[in-house]
Amino acid sequence: MSTLIISEVFGPTVQGEGALVGKPTVFVRSGGCDYRCSWCDTLYAVDKKYKNEWHTLSTEEVWGQIQALSPTPILITLSGGNPALQDFAELIRIGHEAGYTFAMETQGSISKPWFNQVDYLTLSPKPPSSEMETRWDNFDKCLDVARNHEAVSIKIVVANDEDFSWAREVQARYPSYPFYLQPCNLDAEEVTLEQGLQSTRELIDRVVSVGWHDATVLPQLHNILWGTQRGV
Amino acid sequence: MSTLIISEVFGPTVQGEGALVGKPTVFVRSGGCDYRCSWCDTLYAVDKKYKNEWHTLSTEEVWGQIQALSPTPILITLSGGNPALQDFAELIRIGHEAGYTFAMETQGSISKPWFNQVDYLTLSPKPPSSEMETRWDNFDKCLDVARNHEAVSIKIVVANDEDFSWAREVQARYPSYPFYLQPCNLDAEEVTLEQGLQSTRELIDRVVSVGWHDATVLPQLHNILWGTQRGV
Repeated sequence: MSTLIISEVFGPTVQGEGALVGKPTVFVRSGGCDYRCSWCDTLYAVDKKYKNEWHTLSTEEVWGQIQALSPTPILITLSGGNPALQDFAELIRIGHEAGYTFAMETQGSISKPWFNQVDYLTLSPKPPSSEMETRWDNFDKCLDVARNHEAVSIKIVVANDEDFSWAREVQARYPSYPFYLQPCNLDAEEVTLEQGLQSTRELIDRVVSVGWHDATVLPQLHNILWGTQRGV
Repeated sequence: MSTLIISEVFGPTVQGEGALVGKPTVFVRSGGCDYRCSWCDTLYAVDKKYKNEWHTLSTEEVWGQIQALSPTPILITLSGGNPALQDFAELIRIGHEAGYTFAMETQGSISKPWFNQVDYLTLSPKPPSSEMETRWDNFDKCLDVARNHEAVSIKIVVANDEDFSWAREVQARYPSYPFYLQPCNLDAEEVTLEQGLQSTRELIDRVVSVGWHDATVLPQLHNILWGTQRGV
C-alpha cells in the first residue's frame, strides 16, 4: 500500500476557492512542493523546514482520518503543497468505492496517470509575481491526462498588473476551460480582512472595466470568513 | 413591442449569489413583486410606495441601457422584485441574437413560457421566516417550463432553525437540482459586515455538522464587498 506525506487532514468545512466554492469538503493537504511561490500562504506544507510537522502515513491511515472526520460520503479535496508529487491513486480508488468524490488542486507542473480518476481538477498555473516559471508542456500533459472528465477548471491568482495580463494570455491559450481569477495579496501573512475585500473589489473593477466577461472572480472565502486560521 | 417596469439597470459587476457567483453580469431589476418577504432587502423594487422610482420602458429602451453598460456580450441577470410578473421574451430574443446570455432569479410563484429561453434559472422559494407561503404546484410549473435546459438551480436563504429544516425538506423534494444555501439576516437594513460573516460561518458550521454534503453554502458576496450600497 502506498505511503503519503501529509501536512494535515481537516474538515469538514467548505471549499473556499474556485469552481467548488461553498461545497462541503474534507481537505487532505500533502507535504512538499516543487514550487516556492514568493507569496505562498501554505509554507507549512511547502518549506522543508516544516518537514518535522508532516506525517508519513499509509493510504489506509489517511483514509481512516477522512472517515473519522466525515463518516458519510463527502467531497475530498487534495491540496498541498503539490499533491501531484505523490500517489493518490489508491486513496481515490478506496474513496470512490465508498461513495466519496475527489477534487484536486495543482499548479500543473507535474502530471500523473491518476489525475484521470479525479472528479474535479483545478489547474492553477502561477503568475509572474510568484517568481515561478510555468512549463506549458507539462501543463498540457496534465490537461491531456484529465481529458476524460469535464470538470477541469483553471484558476489564477492575480497580485499585480503583470499577473493580470498574464492571466488573460493564459485564458486565450485555453479558452474552453472555466476560468477563475482570485486576488492575491503579496504579503500573505499580514492580510487584513479589509485588504482582502479591497483587493477583491479592485480585481472585479478591473475585470469588468476591460470587458472580460468569461472569467469568474472570487475571493478566498475561507480567508474572509476565518482569516489565516488553520483547520477551517 | 412589450413594455417593462424596471427598478434599475446596473453593472457590469459580478453576480453575488448562487450558482453564478463571481460571474460578470449586468443586472436588470424589475419593479413589482407578488411577495412581500418580511426581511426583503430590495423593498425599493417591491413595495408600491417606491413605484414613482420605477421606469416604464420599452424592451428596446432596456436593451439600449444594457448595451450602453456593456457593448460586448455579457451575462444579463433578470432580477426583481419578481421578473416573472413581466414579459422578458423579447429582451431575451434580442440579447441572444447579439450573443448575450440570460440568468433569472425568481421565487417560483409564477411560471411563464419564456422561462424556457433563460440560460440559467435560479428558483428561490422563500422559507418560513419570510412569512410567505410556497405554492408547490406553481413552483413545479416553473421547473416544467425550464426542463429543456440543464442550468436550473435552487437557492434558499436561511434565517433560523425553522428555515434550515424547511430547506432540507425542499432539497429532499427536488434532489436532482444543484442546491444553494445563503445566510439571511432578519434585519436586512442594519446588517454589519461582521454580522454577515458570522451568519455565514454559523450556517457553514450547521450544514457540515449535520453531514449535509450536497448543498453549497455561499454568502451574499456583494454585501460582504460593498455592504448595502446599490448599483454594484
